[in-house]
Amino acid sequence: MIYLDNAATTLKKPEEVINAVVQAMNSMGNAGRGAHEGVLQAAMKIYGTRKKLAEFFGCKRADHVVFTCNSTEALNIAIMGTLGAEDHVITTQLEHNSVLRPLYRLKKEKGLQISFLPTDEKGDPCYEALPECLKENTKAIISTHASNLTGNVVDAARLGSFAKEHGLLFILDASQTAGVIPVDMEALNADIVCFTGHKSMLGPQGTGGMCIREDVEIAPFKVGGTGVMSYLEEQPSELPTRLEAGTLNGHGIAGLSAAIDYMNVHPERYEAEHAMMQRFYEGVSDIEGITVYGNFSAGLRAPIVALNIRDYSSGEVSDVLFQDYGIATRSGAHCAPLMHKALGTMEQGAVRFSFSSFNTMEETEAAIEAVREIAHRG
Amino acid sequence: MIYLDNAATTLKKPEEVINAVVQAMNSMGNAGRGAHEGVLQAAMKIYGTRKKLAEFFGCKRADHVVFTCNSTEALNIAIMGTLGAEDHVITTQLEHNSVLRPLYRLKKEKGLQISFLPTDEKGDPCYEALPECLKENTKAIISTHASNLTGNVVDAARLGSFAKEHGLLFILDASQTAGVIPVDMEALNADIVCFTGHKSMLGPQGTGGMCIREDVEIAPFKVGGTGVMSYLEEQPSELPTRLEAGTLNGHGIAGLSAAIDYMNVHPERYEAEHAMMQRFYEGVSDIEGITVYGNFSAGLRAPIVALNIRDYSSGEVSDVLFQDYGIATRSGAHCAPLMHKALGTMEQGAVRFSFSSFNTMEETEAAIEAVREIAHRG
Repeated sequence: MIYLDNAATTLKKPEEVINAVVQAMNSMGNAGRGAHEGVLQAAMKIYGTRKKLAEFFGCKRADHVVFTCNSTEALNIAIMGTLGAEDHVITTQLEHNSVLRPLYRLKKEKGLQISFLPTDEKGDPCYEALPECLKENTKAIISTHASNLTGNVVDAARLGSFAKEHGLLFILDASQTAGVIPVDMEALNADIVCFTGHKSMLGPQGTGGMCIREDVEIAPFKVGGTGVMSYLEEQPSELPTRLEAGTLNGHGIAGLSAAIDYMNVHPERYEAEHAMMQRFYEGVSDIEGITVYGNFSAGLRAPIVALNIRDYSSGEVSDVLFQDYGIATRSGAHCAPLMHKALGTMEQGAVRFSFSSFNTMEETEAAIEAVREIAHRG
Repeated sequence: MIYLDNAATTLKKPEEVINAVVQAMNSMGNAGRGAHEGVLQAAMKIYGTRKKLAEFFGCKRADHVVFTCNSTEALNIAIMGTLGAEDHVITTQLEHNSVLRPLYRLKKEKGLQISFLPTDEKGDPCYEALPECLKENTKAIISTHASNLTGNVVDAARLGSFAKEHGLLFILDASQTAGVIPVDMEALNADIVCFTGHKSMLGPQGTGGMCIREDVEIAPFKVGGTGVMSYLEEQPSELPTRLEAGTLNGHGIAGLSAAIDYMNVHPERYEAEHAMMQRFYEGVSDIEGITVYGNFSAGLRAPIVALNIRDYSSGEVSDVLFQDYGIATRSGAHCAPLMHKALGTMEQGAVRFSFSSFNTMEETEAAIEAVREIAHRG
């Protein structure tokens, strides 16, 4: 199988990551519950991972790194915990349902107001519309760092500096970038960065989290046992406990820790993924009948190419790619409804090819050839 | 190290469980996102685990098994998703903060009314007080299946039949029993059973979930991407998607699946754990200066013995046990504030010894000797 569905989850993990999970499963207690060796080892591993993540994302405080089971949970916490009835929020049409559905929910239940930045024909947000979206009650800007459909990277620094200028919170969904494109909270003026461990970070499924700037207040989402302050009726107010209830996924976090180490010593990953994505784009874009979506003239991109072949159903193309060529892609609507609307692909969906550094240029060429053949079958 | 903190998390996992996680980390895609081999393999593994869990807990429908990252999340979903402003709930003093804090939160934010069944001197709920707790607006009974402090098992069948008789929901927290004491939703008349994977079920951290009876309505807690019905603004209403947003912990779930297989072929585990617990209880209970908490005359018990030595700080005893004897226990308040209040151990806490089938009778004897020596030091 040629696995080109890395934007859904990276299937191939570094051996170091798997070994770290195995080691944890052989030795780890419950972090924060007690004071014996199993507990202390777990607590050290988890705190150490917070520290690594803080460094990785440019977060000033390790205790402001909160673990969740995926970025959807982090986004729910960030959105439900900061926005209320009187608020207005600015977001983009690139968003995933993990951002849209919490916003729609708050709109329906509490009357949250939402403005969407319009999108240009290449699927980029029209940043110049920011000022006209601004209202008196605007509380936050929420944006993905890259479209999970087109791979276009959002100019987060621009959104961040606009947010800073107008005293807004800036919540960044780094699900598609963390691990492959630098995410520096300070440089981007991001107040909350939500990430997932199992995509470009190459960590285990069931890991993810959020980095929170020092002065940002987020109401608890889940509440429960914390191993500290048991007699308090409310969730303890200190981070990270405030936003973490119940036993953490220590085994997965150990794997994520090893994944960060791996990423830190493999800075060439972006180049490799970008080269395969670029070669694939160039290889397919002049084939007759192919429509490629997104902006390929920009510098930074997530390693994603979404396309359609004539008016063929994206699902069928994806099936043929897998059945006849052993190439795994993803088709359909990609949980990004507004992006499909903007690109005019609501019905057809799109076939998404997404690359990891474990892919090869040979696989990339094979994928180009497969697309060419399917297009030529007529 | 003699690890006797299995009620916090089982440190030793069956090799089959670790192997299953490794295999998943080498081959698993993102369940429900696409249709290629990696995805299908993940989807099959996850659906297969739902089926096994449904059978394990006597849940009629595999699609009514919902995955969460721990039982705290499952309890938050169950409580926040079924109880509202006008409601009254009956619970017990045995509850963990994972039940208490969501209830207190609803009380504070929406005016939920809460009644606690009183507790007898052995730490059991006074079931005969059930009728007087009942109000016109009583919506549910929520109870743990066993105290995480004393190991006392709650008569869930009695609570369940009372709930059925009066048309109440019965939500059961099986965190301390699932995997070691049978939990049959049908036999217990439970409407929702919440469980965690990393304790007696011997699965990975980061796994857990809930089994839901067919006609029970639970409002979504987290919302976001589901891989299906992308154009819907709301979370899809069908279970399990309704209560699962974002990528599941497929790697952990693969481990949990292997853990269920392991449990199914090792029905002798309860006997072994019970025998060690009973021997430990008998060995320590006649040592001068020892107070053991809980009811040891009952049949079923979770494999837990909580004690104090004279008026010694439980934290210090636990430290001595670890430093001088290499015995890992847990001390302090155990996230069960009302149980400590009922037992008069709010200040002192208690030292908890909890057994797994991977412990041995030799370890049990060593723990008895250690307690004897500490008590005799005077």
